[in-house]
Amino acid sequence: MIDFQTALQPATSTNGSGISPVQTAVTAVAGFKAGGVACGIRKSGRLDLALIVADQPCTAAGVFTTNLVKAAPVLLDQAHLAANAGAIRALVINSGVANACTGEQGLADSLATAGHVAGLLGCAPEQVLVMSTGVIGLNLPMAKITGGASAAAEVVHLEGWQDAAQAILTTDTRTKQAQVTVETPHGTYTIAGISKGSGMIAPHMATMLGIIATDAAISAPLLQQALGAANDTTFNQIVVDGDMSTNDSVVAFASGASGVEITEDSGFKTFQKALGAVCEALAKDIVRDGEGASRLITLRITGAPSEVAARQVGMTIATSPLVKTAFYGADANWGRILAAAGRAGVAFDADHLALWIAPGEDAHLDEDAGWLQLVEQGAPLNYSEEDAGAIMAYPAVTAWLDLGAGQATSTVWTCDLSHEYVTINGHYRT
Amino acid sequence: MIDFQTALQPATSTNGSGISPVQTAVTAVAGFKAGGVACGIRKSGRLDLALIVADQPCTAAGVFTTNLVKAAPVLLDQAHLAANAGAIRALVINSGVANACTGEQGLADSLATAGHVAGLLGCAPEQVLVMSTGVIGLNLPMAKITGGASAAAEVVHLEGWQDAAQAILTTDTRTKQAQVTVETPHGTYTIAGISKGSGMIAPHMATMLGIIATDAAISAPLLQQALGAANDTTFNQIVVDGDMSTNDSVVAFASGASGVEITEDSGFKTFQKALGAVCEALAKDIVRDGEGASRLITLRITGAPSEVAARQVGMTIATSPLVKTAFYGADANWGRILAAAGRAGVAFDADHLALWIAPGEDAHLDEDAGWLQLVEQGAPLNYSEEDAGAIMAYPAVTAWLDLGAGQATSTVWTCDLSHEYVTINGHYRT
Repeated sequence: MIDFQTALQPATSTNGSGISPVQTAVTAVAGFKAGGVACGIRKSGRLDLALIVADQPCTAAGVFTTNLVKAAPVLLDQAHLAANAGAIRALVINSGVANACTGEQGLADSLATAGHVAGLLGCAPEQVLVMSTGVIGLNLPMAKITGGASAAAEVVHLEGWQDAAQAILTTDTRTKQAQVTVETPHGTYTIAGISKGSGMIAPHMATMLGIIATDAAISAPLLQQALGAANDTTFNQIVVDGDMSTNDSVVAFASGASGVEITEDSGFKTFQKALGAVCEALAKDIVRDGEGASRLITLRITGAPSEVAARQVGMTIATSPLVKTAFYGADANWGRILAAAGRAGVAFDADHLALWIAPGEDAHLDEDAGWLQLVEQGAPLNYSEEDAGAIMAYPAVTAWLDLGAGQATSTVWTCDLSHEYVTINGHYRT
Repeated sequence: MIDFQTALQPATSTNGSGISPVQTAVTAVAGFKAGGVACGIRKSGRLDLALIVADQPCTAAGVFTTNLVKAAPVLLDQAHLAANAGAIRALVINSGVANACTGEQGLADSLATAGHVAGLLGCAPEQVLVMSTGVIGLNLPMAKITGGASAAAEVVHLEGWQDAAQAILTTDTRTKQAQVTVETPHGTYTIAGISKGSGMIAPHMATMLGIIATDAAISAPLLQQALGAANDTTFNQIVVDGDMSTNDSVVAFASGASGVEITEDSGFKTFQKALGAVCEALAKDIVRDGEGASRLITLRITGAPSEVAARQVGMTIATSPLVKTAFYGADANWGRILAAAGRAGVAFDADHLALWIAPGEDAHLDEDAGWLQLVEQGAPLNYSEEDAGAIMAYPAVTAWLDLGAGQATSTVWTCDLSHEYVTINGHYRT
């Protein structure tokens, strides 16, 4: 009855493409130096300023929050990428203060930060990007930022990514890193990334950041195309609480130091897949580390009239507090999933809905994966609640909803909604 | 700076219109009998079946869930109202079982319920409406339903609304009742209503119901018009968790027994206002009794390019888990409110945003109401956190966001997101 072969495809399949499995630590990317320092923004003495430096001007791309309330660094980076995507030299990132809702002063501070780093490297300010993450509504402590950037410029090195990954965190409980190598007939290249994000805006925080670096050679427009596509199926498919930050940014840099050249006709498809694998790993790490999360939930929507419709259904289920609390309680509450799907604004016949659950993250495509069907033709089957509860108790669960209304699919990742989430976000700012 | 006179209008103003203040108990509506019995669906022996009977065929109107997954009673009522809105005799409501996701059997059971009541009253089944609320995916226990309906038909009386209000509850902690009288040159009439609802789907529940009765004489089409309009500004403006039930229904009945006739040219505007006041009181009672709610939050959006845009911003803020947890923590977290507004899909200039808070429900329109401005021109003011915290600690708080992008306004009501909400909805079904 279940046609596993055709109904489900893995979100990102890299089999046989020369792409290595995803490593969870970034070692080095030729052509880049990285590092992190404690410049005193965070009271705890934690690392709070990261610097990434390209040995030579590199190509760059970026995707940014579509929130109308955009932080100053987002506005600055959009301008600098529009003018200089072919010749970026550095990215400086501070945590602790988001420089959002700070008006003219905020823009001046971001520009001054870029100018300071440009002075250290001997390039133009327009060749430097800036990211900030942390409390909204506070101005950047500029003396600490410039002092920190100067110190960071002294310590950056080829294998300094661990410190950079640490320095960009806010409420995250751990670093997020991903790296793949790609073997091609022309040589081997690396794509690596670090990210941060936990709630979309943890105690008054402006959050999700992603930084990708590769030593492949790829033009800025082609890198932008690849990043946009990868973002659509990974970072844009995750939900912690449905809120969108003022600072969300993902940037990618390509140094070309591997000597492998990617063009539209040569190696682009594989590059796209490899970038997708890195972004997917980072995106899932954000959900797994979601505020108060105890469970990673993969939602596979199939049988939709279009991809947009499939995603809309997935995102509506993924943001439903009732679905998320049910997962927290390890309750196979199919009624809440169907009810959320029904209000997603997508046309389908409720009598054609089918729902399965399986243990694990992106559960396998065969019957050995332990799929349990809960709903057929829109009505519950006489399944064992005990079996369902056992699946729901796993730290990762996949739910598969078929709409019976077409051929399109989408995969969305979310986490459960726990008491701890309420505690984290209900606490008075400190 | 604050132009209170023009910027804010009360959500429903009934001043000088002959409409009484809203009473929170329904006493009697001429031309109707009501009652409730315990028929054994609920194990606790609680009242679980309500019956409303019109002495004569009455006009009726209804608004129903737009969820694609619609429960059987919703489908039945839509058909019966389409055929017989001018001559409805009764409404029978059971709690405990929602008769949703029950396929053909569910429709047959709803029809059999209507048929049984029609037999008791000597009318056609098409003159009877049915509502069900409770667990999704279970079939109606028909022997209990028909036995209960027979018993209820024996006990209904003019002043039986308390029992009816009690019998329709599920996870609600208290009944919701509202009643106004309207004095007109042609006599006095009454509009009364009862409702239920707490979470949109409490432990696997299908929820919000509203029942309105009036002894005014009003045609079915005009009653439908009035109910639709009242619903748009009240029941459609409340958020507990953003989830939409498979069973949401509001119906209105008009007996004409007061002798006061409402036509498009005579008294309709006042009738609309009075109906709005009843619906608003019931809607706010649902939010106040929201699952785990400790605070009623009124969101006034002004300065929007259109009413649709104003509502969209209000609903996005009202469903944001981060905003709702901040209210739970009595945290005047303006950054989360601005960030939610910014992702609502409405065009405005972030630098024109202004935000105030005041204690109380639908805070007054003058400066004596204790408004505290937190944000001006998109940036925080240097307000006292102590003052802000004191306002946020009230059991009801009004937040007023001006978008500076037009003249349109909308009012939305929501509640906070508490540990208790997670506990209620995370528990395994029992």
